Amino acid sequence: MARSRVVIVGGGFGGLRVAKELDKIDVDVVLIDRTNHHLFQPLLYQVATAGLSPSDIAAPIRAIVGRQKNTTVLMAEVNSIDLESKKVVHDSGELNFDFLVVATGATHSYFGKDDWEKHAPGLKSLADATSIRSRVLGSFEAAERGDGDTGPLLTFVVIGGGPTGVEMAGAIAELGRLALKGDFQRIRPEALKVVLIEAGPRLLGAFDPSLSDYAKRSLEEMGVEVQLGHAVEEIGEGFVKVNGQILHTSNIVWAAGVRANPLVASLGTEVDRAGRAMVQPDCSIPGHSNVFVVGDAMHLAGPDGKPLPGVSPVAMQQGKYVAGLIKAELAGKIERTPFAYWDKGSMATIGRKRAVAQVGNIRLTGFIAWVAWLFVHVWYLIDFDRKLIVLLQWAWAYFTHRRRARLIT
Amino acid sequence: MARSRVVIVGGGFGGLRVAKELDKIDVDVVLIDRTNHHLFQPLLYQVATAGLSPSDIAAPIRAIVGRQKNTTVLMAEVNSIDLESKKVVHDSGELNFDFLVVATGATHSYFGKDDWEKHAPGLKSLADATSIRSRVLGSFEAAERGDGDTGPLLTFVVIGGGPTGVEMAGAIAELGRLALKGDFQRIRPEALKVVLIEAGPRLLGAFDPSLSDYAKRSLEEMGVEVQLGHAVEEIGEGFVKVNGQILHTSNIVWAAGVRANPLVASLGTEVDRAGRAMVQPDCSIPGHSNVFVVGDAMHLAGPDGKPLPGVSPVAMQQGKYVAGLIKAELAGKIERTPFAYWDKGSMATIGRKRAVAQVGNIRLTGFIAWVAWLFVHVWYLIDFDRKLIVLLQWAWAYFTHRRRARLIT
Repeated sequence: MARSRVVIVGGGFGGLRVAKELDKIDVDVVLIDRTNHHLFQPLLYQVATAGLSPSDIAAPIRAIVGRQKNTTVLMAEVNSIDLESKKVVHDSGELNFDFLVVATGATHSYFGKDDWEKHAPGLKSLADATSIRSRVLGSFEAAERGDGDTGPLLTFVVIGGGPTGVEMAGAIAELGRLALKGDFQRIRPEALKVVLIEAGPRLLGAFDPSLSDYAKRSLEEMGVEVQLGHAVEEIGEGFVKVNGQILHTSNIVWAAGVRANPLVASLGTEVDRAGRAMVQPDCSIPGHSNVFVVGDAMHLAGPDGKPLPGVSPVAMQQGKYVAGLIKAELAGKIERTPFAYWDKGSMATIGRKRAVAQVGNIRLTGFIAWVAWLFVHVWYLIDFDRKLIVLLQWAWAYFTHRRRARLIT
Repeated sequence: MARSRVVIVGGGFGGLRVAKELDKIDVDVVLIDRTNHHLFQPLLYQVATAGLSPSDIAAPIRAIVGRQKNTTVLMAEVNSIDLESKKVVHDSGELNFDFLVVATGATHSYFGKDDWEKHAPGLKSLADATSIRSRVLGSFEAAERGDGDTGPLLTFVVIGGGPTGVEMAGAIAELGRLALKGDFQRIRPEALKVVLIEAGPRLLGAFDPSLSDYAKRSLEEMGVEVQLGHAVEEIGEGFVKVNGQILHTSNIVWAAGVRANPLVASLGTEVDRAGRAMVQPDCSIPGHSNVFVVGDAMHLAGPDGKPLPGVSPVAMQQGKYVAGLIKAELAGKIERTPFAYWDKGSMATIGRKRAVAQVGNIRLTGFIAWVAWLFVHVWYLIDFDRKLIVLLQWAWAYFTHRRRARLIT
């Protein structure tokens, strides 16, 4: 009998974990991703704000699992999945599978206003990050040259008050203040305006309210204007309309909504409003015990009845769990215990030396939370050499207040 | 009387040096570049072959001279120069000058066959380098996927046997051998073919013939096929024709010819066949003692009667010299001694542990030349923190045989 084949679509935290767990198992593994790299998404905002380089937070998928003898890595875009004939169709061929893991993650959602995207790009890929970086730095350059009004050029609007929005607003404020203080002759630090817009009543809605307050206060001390309680009404060329008022700006970043990758829909299984597959307690889809969806692409209720959050620990734990199920089944064990998420806590950084963190009933703010944040993020950067280099760069940037990756490309 | 203004066009080795030398001098300095970064061009081939990241070899010009109080940095494209009215016209305005330094460097030359460019990109900017990197890595991916013939996908042709061509051919051979040995399941190291084509009778024509021989032998040991003595006859989609034979390839890199930036022509002064301004012994152009051209954009004979080479030491020494002339003139001293180039020698790297170097009558090859090359190149990387980080990355890559920046973007 031929070896079983496991096809994994997506080389993010979830998919990569499945592949790594299947190393040395008697099964063929094919990992397909449309890019050639695994991306450490939690630090993508650092690339967008010139603190880190793309290669600091991205590692070739081949460098991670390419040397596993049972694993083939393919860089290809998957176009559809055929559950009946157990087949994945990609741009240059198709692949049969015995087990399928869909780990395609999430993309931006503009809640039906797709024409907003060109004015308000989101932050999900390296290309997104370098393009936002070029726009932000390019605005400073245009203001220094004296192209048009300095006001809109130096106004930065971030939409969405979750961790990404908070991190982006804080990082732009720091980048701008730092750059304008020293490196420019004509434009002044006072001209910088950073606005963070959140439709809900508080920032960081998934955190304890005391941490939301701390985040708001910290951002305001850093010069960020925080607007709560009103959703954006309109976005167009050079402006955002919110609460009946027009903000003129050349720089809008969208961090307000995500939805599952559209490929999930091709599974033909039930999805939620964000396009995520409604999975069974064992992460499989109804009627197909050999097809799993993990991470940001799936919807599964946690012990509190709310869906599990779209964060990397969920994806990684599900990846490990699903690989375990596959290994057990290959060994003849069919019975499955449901997936259980171990919540290690959440954290978000606000700026240099400021962050918030909560683990169970423990809540941290300020420098200690920032050190915890730094430690956890550097620790999880996949390769050891990267850990060391990134840590050194940060340490250096910390002492010199410089941002090294200020490239407009 | 208003302060005199020095306008410098180009933030490469020459232009930057002029600006740095004018720090704290009673003169207004405006440095214009179409990018926001100074590029350490000698290591660009390392970015193209995934050994280094763009931010490792590029530093924001503002980070280098932005804090000089008398210096304004503008990111803008200069379109023309009007010597009569002493004016530089750029995309968003114009600038009057009292002194002008044109330090715009060189670009690719296809000797009139401009349609070759789209098939055989050259290597002058970060965008060139990341695009070549994506093409090279993308070819390995396509071969692994099984798109079309593996032969042409894994054939890499480098045209031009000067330092850049030799460095590129060696680096591609190493990247390919390393990648194919471990990270791919389907394609084999034997399938890799790297061809280096040089029209002249030997590689590294500016070096001593013994070093040319060493370079050829070393490349051949690394698996590179070296073809000498025939110019390329034709380049088209997927092929190169040389010496009557067709080479089928998806990857062509052009390192054969350069010409001065076209802006030089707008000076209306005499140029050589490569479009370089024929400058006076003081680097000024005839009839305009306040207008200088330095570096790769100028033509000036050295003591041996041959034009000074297009290398960074010439540009830097001329930058320092021209800044000295401007300082002297501001202080009322009109007399000028001609520019004298101090040749510190030349070096080119071939691969890990192999390089050639010559300084006067001293000739080095092999590991010692490579260490010298490494030391000189890291030393000249402008910022200290970069020196340290880049050195560490290289040390790490050296011990682990890994290339960290293998990103297709």
